[in-house]
Amino acid sequence: MPVISHRGALMPPSPIRKLVPYAEAAKKRGTKVYHLNIGQPDIETPPAIMDAVRHVDMKVLEYSHSAGFESYRKKLVEYYSRNNINVNSNQIIVTTGGSEAIAFAIMSCMDPGDEIIIPEPFYANYNGFSTSAGVKIVPIPSGIEDGFALPSIEAFEKAVTTRTKAIMICNPNNPTGYLYSMEELEVLKAICLKHDLFLFSDEAYREFCYDGRKHISALSLPGLEEHAILMDTISKRYSACGGRIGAFITRNQQVLDAAMKFAQARLSPPSFAQILGEAAVDLPADYFNAVHAEYTSRRDLLVKRLQAMPGVKCPLPGGAFYAMAELPVDDSEKFCQWLLESFSHNGATVMMAPASGFYATPGKGKHEVRLAYVLNSDDINAAMDCLEAALKEYK
Amino acid sequence: MPVISHRGALMPPSPIRKLVPYAEAAKKRGTKVYHLNIGQPDIETPPAIMDAVRHVDMKVLEYSHSAGFESYRKKLVEYYSRNNINVNSNQIIVTTGGSEAIAFAIMSCMDPGDEIIIPEPFYANYNGFSTSAGVKIVPIPSGIEDGFALPSIEAFEKAVTTRTKAIMICNPNNPTGYLYSMEELEVLKAICLKHDLFLFSDEAYREFCYDGRKHISALSLPGLEEHAILMDTISKRYSACGGRIGAFITRNQQVLDAAMKFAQARLSPPSFAQILGEAAVDLPADYFNAVHAEYTSRRDLLVKRLQAMPGVKCPLPGGAFYAMAELPVDDSEKFCQWLLESFSHNGATVMMAPASGFYATPGKGKHEVRLAYVLNSDDINAAMDCLEAALKEYK
Repeated sequence: MPVISHRGALMPPSPIRKLVPYAEAAKKRGTKVYHLNIGQPDIETPPAIMDAVRHVDMKVLEYSHSAGFESYRKKLVEYYSRNNINVNSNQIIVTTGGSEAIAFAIMSCMDPGDEIIIPEPFYANYNGFSTSAGVKIVPIPSGIEDGFALPSIEAFEKAVTTRTKAIMICNPNNPTGYLYSMEELEVLKAICLKHDLFLFSDEAYREFCYDGRKHISALSLPGLEEHAILMDTISKRYSACGGRIGAFITRNQQVLDAAMKFAQARLSPPSFAQILGEAAVDLPADYFNAVHAEYTSRRDLLVKRLQAMPGVKCPLPGGAFYAMAELPVDDSEKFCQWLLESFSHNGATVMMAPASGFYATPGKGKHEVRLAYVLNSDDINAAMDCLEAALKEYK
Repeated sequence: MPVISHRGALMPPSPIRKLVPYAEAAKKRGTKVYHLNIGQPDIETPPAIMDAVRHVDMKVLEYSHSAGFESYRKKLVEYYSRNNINVNSNQIIVTTGGSEAIAFAIMSCMDPGDEIIIPEPFYANYNGFSTSAGVKIVPIPSGIEDGFALPSIEAFEKAVTTRTKAIMICNPNNPTGYLYSMEELEVLKAICLKHDLFLFSDEAYREFCYDGRKHISALSLPGLEEHAILMDTISKRYSACGGRIGAFITRNQQVLDAAMKFAQARLSPPSFAQILGEAAVDLPADYFNAVHAEYTSRRDLLVKRLQAMPGVKCPLPGGAFYAMAELPVDDSEKFCQWLLESFSHNGATVMMAPASGFYATPGKGKHEVRLAYVLNSDDINAAMDCLEAALKEYK
């Protein structure tokens, strides 16, 4: 029997899905499960953009340009310009989700054995794309005690080796919800310029910044034109995760040329969801206001409830729709499994993501969980009732 | 300035797109260009399956399962069963186009430095996926003199080394149109079993077999259960290239488990086109009859016209919608460029794909072109009028 590849064996399974069989068993027993484990928003996809797909009048569902429909890329130029990111349509490659933008960045800039520095905890699928590409993630720690702020410039300096090619950030951050400040971006800029590193910036949650703070894109930093690569997606912005449309954007022409060859090899991004994405740029300016208000009130509720539980620590996230919480339990993975296997409160339980899957350093995150506030306030309250009761009951 | 990766530099540009700027210039001059260069069918996407997307009633465009909607995978079981491929829904991973199925096969089974044997000429994007993965293509020659039949068992034996992990075929073949016989598949089976190799079978053109011959899937060969991996797509079958839906199918559980991890890393395939694909399985059984009759008459016309031109060789293709022709020219790439740059006949010219891009061996295919018969008969006739006049005029 022929054997699979080493990289196939090394690929990490999705840490978020590990507990899925337990959740399914709980549902079979009749227990309601509140899903705070994944970033799948319950917010309705704007009907106007779904209608754009419903009214599609093409006769032949053709390949689009490998970089995406030109009309869509031109619309995206408008969208980015409104967000203080000034690029032209040739600097944008429409990708199959943010996932493919991450893959293009790694493949275009890094070779097997090269190293990428990422503050941990980080989005777990960075592991998968790095393993696929034979690239080594060098984690540097951020911690719950200062709300997962960017590690110090010294921590970056210590991590740089001759194999370092890039730094990757997610801003605002998944899983921590941390929103990087201008001072922090200046630190990243200094390190990237000093050591000639690419800065891969995952800005999937750009629209979700709270408390009046503004998002700063890596692509808006003067001096980083050749270094910054933006990896973007419409999934969270418009609650359109199933569309699988993202974008890879840079002003570095060599990187663009390389990424275009990867884009041509896979022919084109999906046509239907490009139509949806194009319509989304024309949504009324106040579309985000209601969404923003909704997420703000969910965040405030979730964090207030968590902070009121004895032994629970939860810094207030500045962006995205995730919170990291430290729980008074021996092992958050065991606890999350126990919640699904052996616990219920008013016929319900809660599913969370154990944080260890977001750390590259073994043993880290053992007392932490990630909660996605993607449910409405009533459900968040009910989920927090479950967690509160569970922490009392759990030994 | 940070530099791109070696693999980014090594990635081959798409050979089909090289001539695109010349085609665009020709159109600007007012010359009509008949596109026989790419496999983008002009056949209408069945309105019934477009309607399935138009009538979509989901409120939230959610991620699907990483392996694709369960309802779609169950429908695909029906489709494959009708085609003598008996698999269950857990042996199918819905992919983002056939492209991703190719990537999953290579990544799950092969490591950097491993070798894959492919009869040449072959689908040019196999180069891109192999380069991305650091895998080496070992070409073995098939030739126009015997219509691009499978190379001999001796040719395969000679190509096998300790690093060989797989053989890749496309059946019916792009670019040659060759349809492999049971005897040829038995040769592949014997080699794969003897050397414990995977057989990657790209069957994108399954429905397009002519002259009463039946397609034989690698997945229907008894004894190859652990070796055979099917890479499929709905792009050509339903003229749905822009949907970006394909499938990765195998009975090898270890390979499936590895591929699922790559699938989870990219979250999910596109939702809209899965709905289209699901509806396509319920198209009336006679849907393919009209399509089949159309392609048969186009093939017959194209080949008859080519064979009537002095010095042109064109074997009758048994499947797909491509023909390879040898032309009496010094260099088919120069000739194809000249057709776009300097030639017109009745205000029109023809675009073809120079065959060298489909060969891995330098210098091969220099006198050949690939023609895709994706246009209607009137256009094929007009395109052949151009080619005939051009061959007389070209020095």
